[in-house]
This record gives sequence, C-alpha cells and structure tokens, in this order.
Amino acid sequence: MRTPGHSWVVWRSVRLEQPGLKNNTADVERLERGLSRMMDGVSVRISPFLWHELPRTLRASDFHVKVSLRWEAGCWYVLDVLPVDAPVRNYGVALDLGTTTICGCLLDLDTGASLCETTVDNPQIRVGGDILTRIHFATGAGGLSVLRELVLEGVNGAVRKLCAKAETGVQEVRVASVAGNTTMTHFLLGLDPSNIRKEPYIPVVNRPGWMDADRVGIEAHREGKVFVFPNVGSYFGGDVVSGIVASGMHRTTGVSLLVDVGTNAEVVLGNSDWLLGCAGAAGPALEGGVARMGMTAGPGAVDHVRVDPDTWESSVSVMGGGKPAGICGSGLIDLVAELFQAGVIDPRGKIQSMDHPRIVQTDAGRAFVVAPGEDAEHGQAIVLTQVDLDVLLRSKAAMYAILTTLLEEVGLTFQDLSGFFVAGTFGTYIDPVMAIRLGMLPDLPLDTYVPLGNSSLAGSRAFLSNRQCLGEVADVTDRITYLELNVNPRFMSVFSAAKFIPHTDPSLFPSVTGHSGR
Amino acid sequence: MRTPGHSWVVWRSVRLEQPGLKNNTADVERLERGLSRMMDGVSVRISPFLWHELPRTLRASDFHVKVSLRWEAGCWYVLDVLPVDAPVRNYGVALDLGTTTICGCLLDLDTGASLCETTVDNPQIRVGGDILTRIHFATGAGGLSVLRELVLEGVNGAVRKLCAKAETGVQEVRVASVAGNTTMTHFLLGLDPSNIRKEPYIPVVNRPGWMDADRVGIEAHREGKVFVFPNVGSYFGGDVVSGIVASGMHRTTGVSLLVDVGTNAEVVLGNSDWLLGCAGAAGPALEGGVARMGMTAGPGAVDHVRVDPDTWESSVSVMGGGKPAGICGSGLIDLVAELFQAGVIDPRGKIQSMDHPRIVQTDAGRAFVVAPGEDAEHGQAIVLTQVDLDVLLRSKAAMYAILTTLLEEVGLTFQDLSGFFVAGTFGTYIDPVMAIRLGMLPDLPLDTYVPLGNSSLAGSRAFLSNRQCLGEVADVTDRITYLELNVNPRFMSVFSAAKFIPHTDPSLFPSVTGHSGR
Repeated sequence: MRTPGHSWVVWRSVRLEQPGLKNNTADVERLERGLSRMMDGVSVRISPFLWHELPRTLRASDFHVKVSLRWEAGCWYVLDVLPVDAPVRNYGVALDLGTTTICGCLLDLDTGASLCETTVDNPQIRVGGDILTRIHFATGAGGLSVLRELVLEGVNGAVRKLCAKAETGVQEVRVASVAGNTTMTHFLLGLDPSNIRKEPYIPVVNRPGWMDADRVGIEAHREGKVFVFPNVGSYFGGDVVSGIVASGMHRTTGVSLLVDVGTNAEVVLGNSDWLLGCAGAAGPALEGGVARMGMTAGPGAVDHVRVDPDTWESSVSVMGGGKPAGICGSGLIDLVAELFQAGVIDPRGKIQSMDHPRIVQTDAGRAFVVAPGEDAEHGQAIVLTQVDLDVLLRSKAAMYAILTTLLEEVGLTFQDLSGFFVAGTFGTYIDPVMAIRLGMLPDLPLDTYVPLGNSSLAGSRAFLSNRQCLGEVADVTDRITYLELNVNPRFMSVFSAAKFIPHTDPSLFPSVTGHSGR
Repeated sequence: MRTPGHSWVVWRSVRLEQPGLKNNTADVERLERGLSRMMDGVSVRISPFLWHELPRTLRASDFHVKVSLRWEAGCWYVLDVLPVDAPVRNYGVALDLGTTTICGCLLDLDTGASLCETTVDNPQIRVGGDILTRIHFATGAGGLSVLRELVLEGVNGAVRKLCAKAETGVQEVRVASVAGNTTMTHFLLGLDPSNIRKEPYIPVVNRPGWMDADRVGIEAHREGKVFVFPNVGSYFGGDVVSGIVASGMHRTTGVSLLVDVGTNAEVVLGNSDWLLGCAGAAGPALEGGVARMGMTAGPGAVDHVRVDPDTWESSVSVMGGGKPAGICGSGLIDLVAELFQAGVIDPRGKIQSMDHPRIVQTDAGRAFVVAPGEDAEHGQAIVLTQVDLDVLLRSKAAMYAILTTLLEEVGLTFQDLSGFFVAGTFGTYIDPVMAIRLGMLPDLPLDTYVPLGNSSLAGSRAFLSNRQCLGEVADVTDRITYLELNVNPRFMSVFSAAKFIPHTDPSLFPSVTGHSGR
C-alpha cells in the first residue's frame, strides 16, 4: 500500500540562503522559512530541543541539510536536521494493545509498507488474565502504576523486537499508533479505570489523540509522538474504532455488520451514512477463556472438531500439531454444533443421559469426553462439562441477541446486510457453518462472512501509513451512536429465545432446521 | 491598569452535566465541552497531566469545579481543576533579563496590577561583567551550561523573592515573560551565542515565543509557560522590542526616537507606520563602566556634578548620600559638560595644560580631580583622565552619529521629532541640558525628552498583563527594519564631526553656542 504524499513523517533536502549582513535572519527562522516555502507555504516549526545543535549543523553542511518533518494539525514539526548526505530511515510502529497480547508492526513511513510484525504476551497477565481482576488490582495502593509499568514493558518489548528485526534503533521510530480497548488504553496512560466498570460507565478520556512518546513512556525518537485511538465509551474502545477503519464498512453505501469478540463482544452496524455500535458480555466463553479446558487460540489448542454422529468418536485438529492441551473458541463452537447434530445434546443444550464411554460425570455436571487422558498433552482428558456448555450457550445467545436488537433498532433484518465482518482470532478460526448451526450467527449465505484477522492492528497500521486516515478515525468516532444494551428491555427477551439451539424459532435458521424460512 | 477580559490566565467556575447512561461522555471531554460553551465556543484542551486526578476531583465536588485556563494561539488550555470553593491566586512574573541585573515583577493576572518588584544581580557577573567575556567563556567546554545555570539561578532567585514577598508559592506562577538582549536570551535558553558576535551576526533564534517553563528551567506551575521576547537581530534584542511596546511610539502618528543605552546603544525611530532600528557601540562609557573611576548608577555613585567656572571647585551629588566611590554615566556627562563650560577642556576634548591643584598627571595622561582622596569613599581621589575623556567623547560622538544617520536614512531632521524617549538607568539620571551641551543629544526643546525608566521590564509587564499585547509585540518585530551601521559609510563621516564639543558645526547646537541655528 503506497501512500505518496500522505506520510505522517517526510524527509526533505533543503539548501538555505547563506546568511549575510543584509540577510541576518536567525538560524531557526531561516530553516523554518526555507522549509515552509518547500512545503507549499504550510507552517513549519522547529522544536526547541533542536535549537542547540542547529548552528553547528547548518554551518558544517554549508546550509544544505536533510530534515524530517512530522505533520500535526496543519503544521509541520521538524524532528531531525542532518547533513544532506546522512543515511536516514523513516519508521513508525503501529500497535494493537490487547488484553492478552500486544501486537506490533514496523512501518516504512515513506511507502506505508509493513516491514515486520511481532506479538508479545501482555505482561499484565501476571496480575490477572481477565480485565476485571486488573481493574480491581488497580484500585489498590500503587496498583495502577504497576499495571502501567507492565503494559509499557510489553509495548517497549514489542518496539525493541521490531527494531531489532529491522536492524535499527528505537530512536528511528518517530511516530506510533496504539489501538486498544478503553481499559487497556487507560492502563497505558496511567488513568484510573474504576469508573469504566461502574454505572454509568464513564472513561476518563475519550480522545487522547497525539501525545508525547516520552510522556506516555514509549521508547522512540526523543521527540516522537504516539497517537492513541479514541474510544466511544467504556465498552467500545479504540480497538473497535480501528477495526471499523480496517473493514472499510464506513465507506460503503451497503449496510454491514462488524463483530469483534474479545473480552466483550463489540458489534457495529452501519454504512457511509450512519454507524450504530453496542457491546455486551458475550466474549470470554467464545474466546475459550471460560470453559474448564478452554484456552485461547494457539499451539496445542483444538480449533476444529468433528463428531461421528453414529459412534460419537471425535476427531480434532490441534493448532501446531501434536496432542491437544485444551480447546479454543472455534473448537468449542464446532464441538457443540457437532454434539447437537449427533443428538448428544438437545435443543435446550442439555447433555443427554446415556450410558456411553464418552459421557462421564464430573463435579461440574455431566460431561462429554473430547479426548481421553492418554490422547491429551498433559494426560488430562479434554472434556466439555454441562457448566461449560451453559456458559457457552449464554454467550451465543447474547451474541445473537445483540445482533438482533441492533438490527431491530434501525428497522433492518439480517437479509439487508451486504457484509458481515468477523474480527480477531475468533473471526480467523470459526467456521461460519458451525456458528450458524449453533444459532450464534444468523443464517446468511456463507460468502457474506468475511474474516478480518487482527482488525485493530490493521486499522492502527492504516492510520500510521496515511495521515489522511486521521479524518476517517475522527469521522467514525463522531458518527457512532452507542446503544446501551444494559437498559434495553428488548435485548433480554431476544436473549431468552436465543438460548435454544439453534433458536426457539426454527424459521430463523432454514439451512439448519430445513424450515422453509419466513 | 485593569485589563478586563484580556488576561492570559482566567479562572472559571463550571457546573457540568451529571454523567448518565444516556450521557456517557468521558470526564476529560465533558469538562472540555462544558468549558468551551462557557468560553464562547473557543476550543478548550486539558493537558494529560491533569487527566489522572480529574475523575476524583469531579466526583468529590459533584461536577462543580473551579478551573484555570491559559490562552495560547486561539485555544484555552486548562492548568488546574479544583473544588469550586478552593481559594485561588492568579499570578504571573514579568522579567527583564539584563546583563548586570535581573528585574522581576509579580503581577495579579486578574487585574494586571503589579504586586511587587525585585532586582537581583545577574550571577553571570562571577564569570565576567561584560557580555563579551561571557561569550568567550561560553565557547569553552561546559561554559555554556555554566552560564545557563547562573542566569537561571538569578531568574529563579527573583521568582522566589517575588513569591515570598507575596506569601505565595512558585506553583502559583502560571505564566512568565522574559525580555532580554539577544545574548542573554541565548544564555537563558542554553543556545550557542558565538555567531552573535561574528559577522554576519546571526542569532540561533529570533522568536522563541511561548515555551514550557520546566523546559527552560524556570520555577513555576508544573505546566507553566514562559514567553521569551523576540529579537530583531544579534544587536537588537527582546529588551528593545519590549521597550518600544512600553514607549507606545509604535502607536502614534508623530515620529519619535527611542534610545536605550546598555552594553550597546540601541536606537529606534518611527511611528505607527514604520520603525527603523539600529545599534552601535556607544554604551559602556555612557553607563559608567569604562572610565577609571566609573561605576554603574547605584549607592556611592556620583550622578550629578557642578563645576564652579571660576574656582573649578566641583560639587557632587552622591546616590544614597555619603562620600563618592565612583562616577556613573549621568555624572560623567555632567562633569564633561561642566568642564567644557568652565574651559578646563577645549572643544576637541583635551584637558588644558594649566597649573592648578585640580589638574594632575596620571599614567592615563592629564586628569581632573573631581574629589580629592580625603573626600572619597575609599580614600582614593575620584579623577577623570584624558583617556576616560577620549572614550566618553567617542561614545557621545557615536550616539550623535547613530541618531543623525538614522534620521538621514528616512530624510528627516531632529526638528521633525515629536518625542524622544530615553530608556534605562541612563534615561532616568541624565540631565538633557548637559547631554545637549556635550553634543550627545540633539538640541531640542527639553520637554521633547521623556525618561522611560526600565522600559524592558515595563514592556514585559505590559505583555503579561494583557494578552492582546502579543499582537503588538509581533507587529513591532515584523515592522522593524534593522539598519546595519557597520556597513554604512555615512556613519563614519558624521561620527568624526561629532567628536568635537558640542560639534564641528555650531549651528546644530544654538542653545549651547548662541548660534542662530540654521
């Protein structure tokens, strides 16, 4: 993706007029004016930290220098003044600040090209895997600064890894962008997250915007800047805003849906005219974080399952190969959809009482054995308990209820959708056929579903590679109307009906039920 | 001087809408919008350092708070958010950064009133009394940072003294303004001054503008800002720009002259349409810094002298009373004018060879005894040597030549002047009658001469008391045309003619020579 003329940071060579008795403008203003003429009259400002070396650099190079300029709010800010033949690099780092992992991408700002990527665990996991534990920890003495230091350890680790891969130094990173959920953004900025989880769910800040990298604590060029993506509310963060930008749904006239399942499920509906967003607690079960044998998608996770409808033997696909260590979200969805098809569980989601080696009793109720202990990584059988199943079905019902409520809010039906974007790991691995069979996703033609991958990182990267994207980010943030489901009575009624597999109303899922549809 | 509505920093009480599920804007944006409505829709921004405490402060005061806002470039920046009943003070410090002394004034920003003033010695005197010694010292290893630390020691000493007088803390100082000559400004900002004194005399920066107080090193509010006055060139600094603003000459249609004698003599000619400035080495002798017994105006300095034309007995006025310790600029001018009148020196400035107890021989040539040793502070006679006299006459000739050249440049004569402002200590103490008799100042009606006192401090104070003054400062800086006398052949010819007392052309000084004028 080349973005000529739209880089956040550009380099220019400039030959200034020689000073003289009749031309005695100071060094700073001489350079500012020379550059401003070159930049079509746009204001150019030189930060005071550069003033110290400027007289020496200008004279050593006979007033012919190479300069980096960073764009912000209609003005170019000079970051470097070097001899005209100095080798230069023009790098930025786009980041996705996830609850579990921090993903980063080093960009060549000249071309917009991605040079390398990296993913590191979010070191806050040492405090707690889920965000609520961390918010609680933050309320204790010094807790917030511990969490800030941990996330910075992860972010700076990612920045250093990227720079090492590209054989460059962090001081070559002149701009960075960070997209994260509202709570993670608050941790990064050292802001109290406690009001985020208390009604009426008020963040400290919605639009942090461009900030000094050193003030935030991110290792970069000494005058580097970091753009922190805006959130629309406590439950609708910069990661989703970034995802919308990556999907392009805000630019099309057809109406699309975007679903991002993480700690929560965030859903956006809209087009180039309007955007409606909401969020709900549909996430953890679908990410695999809640079930007894659940794990996030990664090596050792069962990501796909098929169950023989006659023998109930299951065959599993394990990420990275080898024996399974647990089961991730897409595996769970496959499993439950297959168990339903095989009659192991009924439409109410109850594991049938049958005398079969695959059905066992546990302290969490009846359970289905996906893989016996001898076939599993740590010798412990991979099982799906009734409790796990109940949680999963509540999540899938919540998801379907969110989607339905959102569409009803604007008087549309699923059939009006021209696209259905599924973000994140969830979107990468789930099989829409299985999700539809379960009644989690609506019964639409399969090509409607588009996996986006890490859309938060993709949007962060799109922003950093093209300064015109700032307008899109602001526009998306301005246009989103946030629908608070906690106060929506319709949501609860749809939710109850959606706890069945696939649904109490079989006509909604003709491809599953064989019903002719309505 | 009340400046309603034009303060750089204002305080406002604001009662924000309570957050709710239908009104879930973040704390930062809630306050920004509430304030923006109050400030006629002007943008309001809250610095990230305030975000941390904001949630607690807003909730503890039930969203009814008192806020300080600082104006810059069309935007209000929030500096403090306090409970609505918190006592607040609204202070700023205006500074004049002199080579010899640093003068400061604490202002009440609400009213523009001056609360107290202070003067401290410039601690750079430890390195050297004159600016050239300091510039040389700055070129040595670590020299520049020593000089910066010394000037900051003086500036912060002044700020602390002012705050102590007003029984307040430095954190109540939210804005400051600094007017100084170009070299002093460079020392304050830690900038290399070496090109200032080398042809073509190029400063590092002309218009530093608003800077972070903590970056400059000035003790103030943690987000305090310092305005550093612009210079027009190496020899025409922010102190003179500030003096022009204080004089008001840039607002009148009549043409005025402003003379500021310090290390150099800076002269400005102009009115509301145009301003022409120049500077020349006419200073030190006139300030009293060069003569053997010279000293700057202060306790023990002879500031006025009368010489009996018959007996050559001199009667002196000593600043602060007591015995004289030396002689300052105004005393020297009086003395030479009186000696000329009494015939002790001839029109070429030579001390006459006469057998008289007041005339003695020294290693610096013939000398006149102003006060014998027994009448002087340290037992050493106060004398004026032929060498001192030669230096003084060169200075007075330079001054007259600067004034004449400047007027000729625009085709005016002294008679066209509607005002003649004399800035600084020099302006406060000299007697225009004597300066005219000497031929240093033109032979104009005495009421044309207006002493300005410390015009650099006055302009700095005017700026800080009224934000509309920024436009005047910028306008004056834009409008000044700087005339380089070093390359002006006319200057040398006028200079030679002006070395006589009062002048080779007696018709120029009718009140002195009795000539009818021309």
